[in-house]
Amino acid sequence: MKENNIYETDALVSQYCDFQYGDEHFGVMNFAKACAQKAIGYTKSTQQKRALDLGCATGRASFELTQAFDHVDGVDYSQAFIDAAVELQKTGRIRYAQNGEGELTNQILVDMTMFGFRDSCVKAVFSQGDACDLAAEFKEYDLVMATNLIDRLYEPQLFLNTIHERINADGFLVLTSPYTWLEEYTQKKFWIGGYVDENGCEVSTLEGLTKLLEANFELVATEDVPFVIRETARKFQHTISQMSVWKRK
Amino acid sequence: MKENNIYETDALVSQYCDFQYGDEHFGVMNFAKACAQKAIGYTKSTQQKRALDLGCATGRASFELTQAFDHVDGVDYSQAFIDAAVELQKTGRIRYAQNGEGELTNQILVDMTMFGFRDSCVKAVFSQGDACDLAAEFKEYDLVMATNLIDRLYEPQLFLNTIHERINADGFLVLTSPYTWLEEYTQKKFWIGGYVDENGCEVSTLEGLTKLLEANFELVATEDVPFVIRETARKFQHTISQMSVWKRK
Repeated sequence: MKENNIYETDALVSQYCDFQYGDEHFGVMNFAKACAQKAIGYTKSTQQKRALDLGCATGRASFELTQAFDHVDGVDYSQAFIDAAVELQKTGRIRYAQNGEGELTNQILVDMTMFGFRDSCVKAVFSQGDACDLAAEFKEYDLVMATNLIDRLYEPQLFLNTIHERINADGFLVLTSPYTWLEEYTQKKFWIGGYVDENGCEVSTLEGLTKLLEANFELVATEDVPFVIRETARKFQHTISQMSVWKRK
Repeated sequence: MKENNIYETDALVSQYCDFQYGDEHFGVMNFAKACAQKAIGYTKSTQQKRALDLGCATGRASFELTQAFDHVDGVDYSQAFIDAAVELQKTGRIRYAQNGEGELTNQILVDMTMFGFRDSCVKAVFSQGDACDLAAEFKEYDLVMATNLIDRLYEPQLFLNTIHERINADGFLVLTSPYTWLEEYTQKKFWIGGYVDENGCEVSTLEGLTKLLEANFELVATEDVPFVIRETARKFQHTISQMSVWKRK
Protein backbone atom coordinates (compact mmCIF):
# COMPACT_ATOMS: atom_id res chain seq x y z
CA MET A 1 0.00 0.00 0.00
CA LYS A 2 1.79 3.05 -1.28
CA GLU A 3 -0.03 5.53 0.96
CA ASN A 4 1.39 3.88 4.09
CA ASN A 5 4.92 3.83 2.76
CA ILE A 6 5.30 7.37 4.00
CA TYR A 7 8.95 7.46 4.74
CA GLU A 8 11.82 5.30 3.65
CA THR A 9 13.69 4.92 6.92
CA ASP A 10 17.27 3.81 7.24
CA ALA A 11 18.39 1.31 9.87
CA LEU A 12 19.19 3.81 12.62
CA VAL A 13 16.02 5.83 12.10
CA SER A 14 14.07 2.57 12.24
CA GLN A 15 15.81 1.58 15.44
CA TYR A 16 14.99 4.95 17.03
CA CYS A 17 11.37 4.89 15.82
CA ASP A 18 11.14 1.53 17.55
CA PHE A 19 12.88 2.90 20.67
CA GLN A 20 10.60 5.93 20.84
CA TYR A 21 7.25 4.55 19.57
CA GLY A 22 7.50 0.75 19.69
CA ASP A 23 6.65 -1.84 22.31
CA GLU A 24 8.17 -1.83 25.77
CA HIS A 25 10.53 -4.67 26.81
CA PHE A 26 11.51 -6.25 30.14
CA GLY A 27 8.87 -4.13 31.89
CA VAL A 28 10.88 -0.95 31.27
CA MET A 29 8.76 2.12 30.48
CA ASN A 30 9.27 3.95 27.20
CA PHE A 31 12.33 6.10 27.90
CA ALA A 32 11.31 9.28 26.04
CA LYS A 33 7.92 9.22 27.76
CA ALA A 34 9.46 8.53 31.18
CA CYS A 35 11.98 11.37 30.81
CA ALA A 36 9.33 13.83 29.61
CA GLN A 37 7.00 12.93 32.47
CA LYS A 38 9.79 13.32 35.02
CA ALA A 39 10.85 16.65 33.49
CA ILE A 40 7.26 17.89 33.57
CA GLY A 41 7.12 16.89 37.23
CA TYR A 42 10.39 18.60 38.15
CA THR A 43 9.35 21.86 36.43
CA LYS A 44 5.95 22.10 38.16
CA SER A 45 7.38 24.81 40.45
CA THR A 46 8.08 27.21 37.58
CA GLN A 47 6.16 28.34 34.49
CA GLN A 48 5.89 25.76 31.72
CA LYS A 49 5.93 27.92 28.60
CA ARG A 50 8.98 27.06 26.55
CA ALA A 51 10.91 23.77 26.46
CA LEU A 52 13.89 22.64 24.38
CA ASP A 53 14.44 18.91 23.73
CA LEU A 54 18.09 18.66 22.63
CA GLY A 55 18.96 15.40 20.88
CA CYS A 56 15.26 14.79 20.27
CA ALA A 57 15.85 11.96 17.76
CA THR A 58 12.45 11.05 16.21
CA GLY A 59 10.60 13.44 18.51
CA ARG A 60 8.79 11.33 21.10
CA ALA A 61 9.88 13.31 24.18
CA SER A 62 9.18 16.61 22.40
CA PHE A 63 5.65 15.44 21.66
CA GLU A 64 5.20 14.29 25.26
CA LEU A 65 6.35 17.71 26.52
CA THR A 66 3.67 19.47 24.45
CA GLN A 67 1.13 18.09 26.92
CA ALA A 68 2.48 20.53 29.55
CA PHE A 69 4.43 23.22 27.66
CA ASP A 70 3.07 25.89 25.30
CA HIS A 71 5.97 25.55 22.88
CA VAL A 72 8.57 22.79 22.46
CA ASP A 73 11.63 22.99 20.23
CA GLY A 74 13.00 19.60 19.21
CA VAL A 75 16.56 19.75 17.90
CA ASP A 76 18.77 16.92 16.68
CA TYR A 77 22.11 16.73 14.89
CA SER A 78 20.65 14.15 12.49
CA GLN A 79 18.52 15.50 9.65
CA ALA A 80 17.11 11.99 9.10
CA PHE A 81 15.75 11.91 12.67
CA ILE A 82 14.25 15.39 12.25
CA ASP A 83 12.66 14.34 8.94
CA ALA A 84 11.03 11.38 10.70
CA ALA A 85 9.69 13.57 13.54
CA VAL A 86 8.29 16.12 11.07
CA GLU A 87 6.72 13.40 8.91
CA LEU A 88 5.02 11.95 11.97
CA GLN A 89 3.74 15.36 13.01
CA LYS A 90 2.54 16.27 9.50
CA THR A 91 0.96 13.00 8.41
CA GLY A 92 0.17 11.41 11.77
CA ARG A 93 1.99 8.21 10.92
CA ILE A 94 5.26 6.62 9.99
CA ARG A 95 6.22 3.14 8.79
CA TYR A 96 9.52 1.55 9.66
CA ALA A 97 11.28 -1.78 9.23
CA GLN A 98 11.85 -3.53 12.55
CA ASN A 99 14.74 -6.01 12.60
CA GLY A 100 13.88 -9.69 12.90
CA GLU A 101 16.27 -12.64 12.61
CA GLY A 102 19.18 -12.01 10.20
CA GLU A 103 17.94 -9.97 7.25
CA LEU A 104 14.24 -10.53 8.01
CA THR A 105 12.19 -7.48 9.01
CA ASN A 106 8.70 -6.65 10.25
CA GLN A 107 6.85 -3.64 8.85
CA ILE A 108 5.57 -1.50 11.73
CA LEU A 109 3.15 1.41 11.45
CA VAL A 110 3.20 4.14 14.10
CA ASP A 111 -0.11 5.97 14.32
CA MET A 112 -0.15 9.24 16.29
CA THR A 113 -3.80 8.77 17.23
CA MET A 114 -2.64 6.05 19.65
CA PHE A 115 -0.82 8.60 21.82
CA GLY A 116 -1.95 11.16 24.40
CA PHE A 117 -0.31 14.03 22.52
CA ARG A 118 -2.30 13.68 19.29
CA ASP A 119 -3.91 17.11 19.83
CA SER A 120 -1.01 18.98 21.46
CA CYS A 121 1.74 17.74 19.11
CA VAL A 122 1.30 20.79 16.84
CA LYS A 123 3.10 22.78 19.55
CA ALA A 124 6.40 21.05 18.73
CA VAL A 125 8.81 22.63 16.21
CA PHE A 126 11.62 20.44 14.90
CA SER A 127 14.90 21.52 13.39
CA GLN A 128 18.36 20.17 12.70
CA GLY A 129 21.01 21.70 14.93
CA ASP A 130 24.24 21.18 16.85
CA ALA A 131 24.04 21.24 20.67
CA CYS A 132 27.66 22.51 20.73
CA ASP A 133 26.87 25.40 18.39
CA LEU A 134 23.21 26.26 18.82
CA ALA A 135 21.59 29.15 16.95
CA ALA A 136 20.82 32.32 18.95
CA GLU A 137 17.06 31.88 18.50
CA PHE A 138 16.99 28.93 20.93
CA LYS A 139 16.55 30.84 24.19
CA GLU A 140 14.24 31.79 27.07
CA TYR A 141 13.42 28.26 28.07
CA ASP A 142 11.80 27.06 31.28
CA LEU A 143 13.18 23.60 30.53
CA VAL A 144 16.12 22.36 28.52
CA MET A 145 16.19 18.57 28.39
CA ALA A 146 19.09 16.61 26.88
CA THR A 147 18.55 12.85 27.08
CA ASN A 148 21.51 10.60 26.32
CA LEU A 149 23.29 13.44 24.61
CA ILE A 150 26.38 14.61 26.50
CA ASP A 151 28.51 11.48 25.88
CA ARG A 152 27.85 11.76 22.13
CA LEU A 153 28.97 15.40 21.72
CA TYR A 154 32.37 16.21 20.23
CA GLU A 155 32.98 18.86 22.90
CA PRO A 156 30.28 18.71 25.60
CA GLN A 157 31.85 21.69 27.42
CA LEU A 158 30.67 23.96 24.57
CA PHE A 159 27.11 22.96 25.42
CA LEU A 160 27.42 22.81 29.21
CA ASN A 161 29.32 26.10 29.65
CA THR A 162 26.76 28.19 27.79
CA ILE A 163 23.38 26.50 28.17
CA HIS A 164 22.50 28.63 31.25
CA GLU A 165 22.24 31.66 28.94
CA ARG A 166 19.22 30.08 27.28
CA ILE A 167 17.35 29.16 30.47
CA ASN A 168 15.08 31.52 32.41
CA ALA A 169 15.71 32.20 36.12
CA ASP A 170 14.25 29.27 38.10
CA GLY A 171 14.16 27.21 34.90
CA PHE A 172 15.58 23.70 34.66
CA LEU A 173 18.24 21.74 32.84
CA VAL A 174 17.46 18.02 32.82
CA LEU A 175 20.26 15.73 31.66
CA THR A 176 20.29 11.97 31.29
CA SER A 177 23.28 9.88 30.34
CA PRO A 178 24.73 6.40 30.90
CA TYR A 179 28.18 8.11 30.73
CA THR A 180 29.34 5.79 27.95
CA TRP A 181 32.38 7.86 27.01
CA LEU A 182 33.97 6.66 23.77
CA GLU A 183 36.80 8.26 21.82
CA GLU A 184 34.95 7.67 18.54
CA TYR A 185 32.45 10.34 19.66
CA THR A 186 34.39 12.50 22.13
CA GLN A 187 38.17 12.97 22.31
CA LYS A 188 39.36 11.89 25.74
CA LYS A 189 40.49 15.43 26.63
CA PHE A 190 36.82 16.52 26.40
CA TRP A 191 35.33 13.75 28.58
CA ILE A 192 33.39 15.24 31.49
CA GLY A 193 34.31 12.32 33.74
CA GLY A 194 35.27 8.67 33.65
CA TYR A 195 39.00 9.33 33.82
CA VAL A 196 41.88 9.59 36.28
CA ASP A 197 43.04 13.20 36.73
CA GLU A 198 46.60 14.52 36.93
CA ASN A 199 46.61 13.89 40.72
CA GLY A 200 45.68 10.23 40.26
CA CYS A 201 42.08 10.78 41.44
CA GLU A 202 39.14 9.18 39.68
CA VAL A 203 36.67 11.77 38.37
CA SER A 204 33.05 10.67 37.91
CA THR A 205 30.91 12.36 35.30
CA LEU A 206 28.52 13.67 37.95
CA GLU A 207 31.49 15.36 39.64
CA GLY A 208 32.61 16.78 36.30
CA LEU A 209 29.10 18.04 35.54
CA THR A 210 28.87 19.67 38.95
CA LYS A 211 32.15 21.50 38.40
CA LEU A 212 30.94 22.86 35.06
CA LEU A 213 27.39 23.73 36.11
CA GLU A 214 27.51 24.78 39.78
CA ALA A 215 28.20 28.46 39.07
CA ASN A 216 24.82 28.81 37.37
CA PHE A 217 22.76 25.86 38.59
CA GLU A 218 21.83 24.05 41.76
CA LEU A 219 21.72 20.24 41.50
CA VAL A 220 18.25 19.43 42.87
CA ALA A 221 17.93 15.69 42.13
CA THR A 222 19.48 12.63 40.54
CA GLU A 223 17.74 9.38 39.69
CA ASP A 224 18.34 6.30 37.57
CA VAL A 225 16.16 5.93 34.47
CA PRO A 226 16.46 2.63 32.57
CA PHE A 227 16.00 2.23 28.84
CA VAL A 228 15.89 -0.65 26.38
CA ILE A 229 16.78 -0.39 22.68
CA ARG A 230 15.72 -3.33 20.53
CA GLU A 231 18.44 -4.44 18.10
CA THR A 232 16.91 -7.68 16.82
CA ALA A 233 13.99 -9.89 17.83
CA ARG A 234 16.17 -11.33 20.61
CA LYS A 235 18.94 -8.78 21.29
CA PHE A 236 18.52 -5.57 23.26
CA GLN A 237 20.64 -2.81 24.79
CA HIS A 238 19.52 -2.46 28.40
CA THR A 239 21.00 0.61 30.01
CA ILE A 240 20.58 2.58 33.23
CA SER A 241 20.85 6.26 32.45
CA GLN A 242 21.46 8.74 35.25
CA MET A 243 19.10 11.72 35.25
CA SER A 244 20.43 14.87 36.90
CA VAL A 245 18.13 17.85 37.44
CA TRP A 246 19.71 21.31 37.60
CA LYS A 247 17.83 24.46 38.63
CA ARG A 248 18.96 27.79 37.15
CA LYS A 249 20.15 30.20 39.84
CA MET B 1 49.74 -7.74 45.30
CA LYS B 2 51.65 -9.65 42.70
CA GLU B 3 50.34 -13.08 43.74
CA ASN B 4 46.78 -12.07 42.86
CA ASN B 5 47.71 -10.64 39.51
CA ILE B 6 47.49 -14.13 38.09
CA TYR B 7 46.49 -13.36 34.56
CA GLU B 8 46.71 -10.21 32.53
CA THR B 9 43.32 -10.25 30.86
CA ASP B 10 42.42 -8.27 27.79
CA ALA B 11 39.10 -6.46 27.48
CA LEU B 12 37.11 -9.32 25.93
CA VAL B 13 38.45 -11.92 28.38
CA SER B 14 37.54 -9.54 31.21
CA GLN B 15 34.05 -9.09 29.80
CA TYR B 16 33.56 -12.87 29.58
CA CYS B 17 35.00 -13.49 33.05
CA ASP B 18 32.41 -11.01 34.28
CA PHE B 19 29.67 -12.68 32.18
CA GLN B 20 30.56 -16.15 33.46
CA TYR B 21 31.66 -15.48 37.07
CA GLY B 22 30.43 -11.97 37.95
CA ASP B 23 27.27 -10.63 39.53
CA GLU B 24 23.83 -11.22 38.03
CA HIS B 25 21.83 -8.27 36.63
CA PHE B 26 18.12 -7.53 36.13
CA GLY B 27 17.27 -10.74 38.02
CA VAL B 28 18.62 -12.87 35.14
CA MET B 29 20.41 -16.04 36.27
CA ASN B 30 24.03 -16.60 35.26
CA PHE B 31 23.72 -17.88 31.69
CA ALA B 32 26.49 -20.52 31.73
CA LYS B 33 25.10 -21.97 34.96
CA ALA B 34 21.51 -21.90 33.68
CA CYS B 35 22.47 -23.65 30.43
CA ALA B 36 24.53 -26.30 32.23
CA GLN B 37 21.73 -26.99 34.70
CA LYS B 38 19.18 -27.30 31.90
CA ALA B 39 21.50 -29.58 29.91
CA ILE B 40 22.07 -31.76 32.96
CA GLY B 41 18.30 -32.00 33.38
CA TYR B 42 17.64 -32.86 29.73
CA THR B 43 20.30 -35.61 29.76
CA LYS B 44 18.99 -37.33 32.93
CA SER B 45 17.45 -40.08 30.74
CA THR B 46 20.82 -41.21 29.37
CA GLN B 47 24.25 -41.86 30.89
CA GLN B 48 26.19 -38.78 31.93
CA LYS B 49 29.77 -39.82 31.30
CA ARG B 50 31.25 -37.53 28.66
CA ALA B 51 30.26 -33.97 27.77
CA LEU B 52 31.66 -31.47 25.30
CA ASP B 53 31.20 -27.72 25.89
CA LEU B 54 31.89 -26.12 22.50
CA GLY B 55 32.56 -22.38 22.64
CA CYS B 56 33.26 -22.71 26.37
CA ALA B 57 34.80 -19.21 26.70
CA THR B 58 36.29 -18.90 30.20
CA GLY B 59 34.93 -22.29 31.23
CA ARG B 60 32.01 -21.66 33.58
CA ALA B 61 29.54 -24.06 31.92
CA SER B 62 32.24 -26.74 31.60
CA PHE B 63 32.89 -26.48 35.34
CA GLU B 64 29.15 -26.62 36.08
CA LEU B 65 28.83 -29.78 33.94
CA THR B 66 31.53 -31.53 36.00
CA GLN B 67 28.99 -31.75 38.81
CA ALA B 68 27.05 -34.35 36.77
CA PHE B 69 29.47 -35.68 34.13
CA ASP B 70 32.61 -37.81 34.64
CA HIS B 71 34.58 -35.95 31.99
CA VAL B 72 33.99 -32.58 30.35
CA ASP B 73 35.92 -31.20 27.38
CA GLY B 74 35.83 -27.42 27.10
CA VAL B 75 36.84 -26.16 23.65
CA ASP B 76 37.02 -22.58 22.41
CA TYR B 77 38.40 -20.92 19.30
CA SER B 78 40.07 -18.28 21.47
CA GLN B 79 43.35 -19.29 23.13
CA ALA B 80 42.98 -16.32 25.52
CA PHE B 81 39.66 -17.70 26.81
CA ILE B 82 41.16 -21.18 27.21
CA ASP B 83 44.16 -19.71 29.06
CA ALA B 84 41.77 -17.99 31.49
CA ALA B 85 39.80 -21.22 32.09
CA VAL B 86 43.00 -23.22 32.68
CA GLU B 87 44.41 -20.56 35.00
CA LEU B 88 41.20 -20.61 37.06
CA GLN B 89 41.29 -24.40 37.24
CA LYS B 90 44.99 -24.54 38.15
CA THR B 91 45.24 -21.68 40.64
CA GLY B 92 41.65 -21.44 41.83
CA ARG B 93 41.38 -17.74 41.06
CA ILE B 94 41.56 -15.08 38.41
CA ARG B 95 41.63 -11.30 38.56
CA TYR B 96 40.09 -9.15 35.87
CA ALA B 97 39.40 -5.48 35.18
CA GLN B 98 35.68 -4.70 35.13
CA ASN B 99 34.68 -1.61 33.11
CA GLY B 100 33.42 1.40 35.04
CA GLU B 101 32.66 4.87 33.64
CA GLY B 102 34.89 5.85 30.71
CA GLU B 103 38.39 4.52 31.30
CA LEU B 104 37.82 3.74 35.00
CA THR B 105 37.89 0.07 36.03
CA ASN B 106 37.25 -2.08 39.10
CA GLN B 107 39.59 -4.94 39.97
CA ILE B 108 37.55 -8.10 40.53
CA LEU B 109 38.86 -11.36 41.97
CA VAL B 110 37.09 -14.63 41.09
CA ASP B 111 37.67 -17.31 43.71
CA MET B 112 36.75 -20.90 42.76
CA THR B 113 36.01 -21.80 46.38
CA MET B 114 32.82 -19.71 46.07
CA PHE B 115 31.32 -22.15 43.55
CA GLY B 116 29.68 -25.57 43.84
CA PHE B 117 32.15 -27.17 41.42
CA ARG B 118 35.30 -26.46 43.45
CA ASP B 119 35.90 -30.21 43.96
CA SER B 120 34.64 -31.55 40.63
CA CYS B 121 36.31 -28.94 38.40
CA VAL B 122 39.38 -31.16 37.93
CA LYS B 123 37.20 -33.28 35.60
CA ALA B 124 37.24 -30.50 32.96
CA VAL B 125 39.89 -30.50 30.23
CA PHE B 126 40.29 -27.32 28.20
CA SER B 127 41.78 -26.90 24.75
CA GLN B 128 41.77 -24.48 21.87
CA GLY B 129 39.86 -25.79 18.86
CA ASP B 130 37.61 -24.95 15.92
CA ALA B 131 34.00 -26.18 16.06
CA CYS B 132 34.01 -26.32 12.23
CA ASP B 133 37.13 -28.49 12.14
CA LEU B 134 37.25 -30.44 15.38
CA ALA B 135 40.01 -32.99 16.06
CA ALA B 136 39.06 -36.68 15.85
CA GLU B 137 39.67 -37.25 19.57
CA PHE B 138 36.51 -35.30 20.48
CA LYS B 139 33.96 -38.13 20.32
CA GLU B 140 31.68 -40.51 22.21
CA TYR B 141 29.78 -37.81 24.05
CA ASP B 142 26.50 -38.14 25.92
CA LEU B 143 26.12 -34.37 25.64
CA VAL B 144 27.45 -31.79 23.22
CA MET B 145 26.51 -28.28 24.28
CA ALA B 146 27.15 -25.22 22.12
CA THR B 147 25.94 -22.02 23.74
CA ASN B 148 25.77 -18.87 21.61
CA LEU B 149 28.09 -20.45 19.07
CA ILE B 150 26.36 -21.19 15.77
CA ASP B 151 25.89 -17.56 14.67
CA ARG B 152 29.61 -16.88 15.26
CA LEU B 153 30.94 -19.76 13.10
CA TYR B 154 32.33 -19.08 9.61
CA GLU B 155 30.47 -22.10 8.22
CA PRO B 156 28.07 -23.55 10.81
CA GLN B 157 27.06 -26.35 8.41
CA LEU B 158 30.51 -27.91 8.89
CA PHE B 159 29.71 -28.28 12.58
CA LEU B 160 26.01 -29.18 12.30
CA ASN B 161 26.38 -31.74 9.50
CA THR B 162 28.96 -33.84 11.35
CA ILE B 163 28.38 -33.38 15.07
CA HIS B 164 26.11 -36.48 15.25
CA GLU B 165 29.20 -38.64 14.59
CA ARG B 166 30.59 -37.57 17.98
CA ILE B 167 27.44 -38.23 20.01
CA ASN B 168 26.43 -41.61 21.46
CA ALA B 169 23.03 -43.14 20.61
CA ASP B 170 20.42 -41.47 22.88
CA GLY B 171 22.91 -38.68 23.59
CA PHE B 172 22.02 -34.99 23.28
CA LEU B 173 22.98 -31.90 21.34
CA VAL B 174 22.00 -28.73 23.21
CA LEU B 175 22.24 -25.49 21.23
CA THR B 176 21.51 -21.95 22.32
CA SER B 177 21.59 -18.89 20.09
CA PRO B 178 19.95 -15.49 19.73
CA TYR B 179 20.32 -16.01 15.95
CA THR B 180 22.22 -12.74 15.56
CA TRP B 181 23.48 -13.47 12.04
CA LEU B 182 26.09 -10.97 10.91
CA GLU B 183 28.19 -11.03 7.76
CA GLU B 184 31.30 -10.06 9.74
CA TYR B 185 31.18 -13.54 11.31
CA THR B 186 29.29 -15.68 8.79
CA GLN B 187 28.95 -15.08 5.05
CA LYS B 188 25.26 -14.77 4.19
CA LYS B 189 25.34 -17.92 2.05
CA PHE B 190 26.15 -19.91 5.22
CA TRP B 191 23.42 -18.46 7.45
CA ILE B 192 21.22 -21.24 8.84
CA GLY B 193 18.16 -18.97 8.80
CA GLY B 194 17.12 -15.35 8.99
CA TYR B 195 16.85 -14.94 5.23
CA VAL B 196 14.33 -15.07 2.40
CA ASP B 197 14.84 -18.15 0.21
CA GLU B 198 14.72 -18.41 -3.59
CA ASN B 199 10.94 -18.95 -3.44
CA GLY B 200 10.41 -15.75 -1.46
CA CYS B 201 9.75 -17.63 1.78
CA GLU B 202 11.20 -16.49 5.11
CA VAL B 203 13.38 -19.17 6.70
CA SER B 204 13.80 -19.07 10.48
CA THR B 205 16.94 -20.44 12.05
CA LEU B 206 14.99 -23.10 13.91
CA GLU B 207 13.60 -24.29 10.55
CA GLY B 208 17.11 -24.27 9.08
CA LEU B 209 18.48 -26.21 12.07
CA THR B 210 15.70 -28.77 11.78
CA LYS B 211 16.47 -29.33 8.10
CA LEU B 212 20.15 -29.93 8.88
CA LEU B 213 19.68 -32.05 11.99
CA GLU B 214 16.47 -34.07 11.52
CA ALA B 215 18.14 -37.01 9.79
CA ASN B 216 20.15 -37.79 12.92
CA PHE B 217 18.31 -36.05 15.75
CA GLU B 218 14.84 -35.61 17.16
CA LEU B 219 13.99 -32.10 18.41
CA VAL B 220 12.75 -32.75 21.94
CA ALA B 221 12.42 -29.22 23.37
CA THR B 222 12.94 -25.52 22.83
CA GLU B 223 12.97 -22.81 25.46
CA ASP B 224 14.07 -19.20 25.82
CA VAL B 225 17.08 -18.56 28.04
CA PRO B 226 17.95 -14.91 28.74
CA PHE B 227 21.42 -13.58 29.33
CA VAL B 228 22.96 -10.27 30.31
CA ILE B 229 26.49 -9.14 29.42
CA ARG B 230 27.79 -6.14 31.32
CA GLU B 231 29.58 -3.62 29.07
CA THR B 232 30.00 -0.73 31.51
CA ALA B 233 28.63 0.15 34.94
CA ARG B 234 25.40 1.26 33.26
CA LYS B 235 25.25 -0.48 29.85
CA PHE B 236 24.32 -4.11 29.28
CA GLN B 237 23.48 -6.47 26.43
CA HIS B 238 20.22 -8.18 27.37
CA THR B 239 19.44 -11.03 25.03
CA ILE B 240 16.96 -13.89 24.82
CA SER B 241 18.74 -16.94 23.48
CA GLN B 242 16.72 -19.85 22.12
CA MET B 243 17.76 -23.22 23.51
CA SER B 244 16.98 -26.20 21.27
CA VAL B 245 17.49 -29.74 22.58
CA TRP B 246 18.20 -32.49 20.03
CA LYS B 247 18.28 -36.21 20.89
CA ARG B 248 20.52 -38.49 18.82
CA LYS B 249 18.57 -41.14 16.93
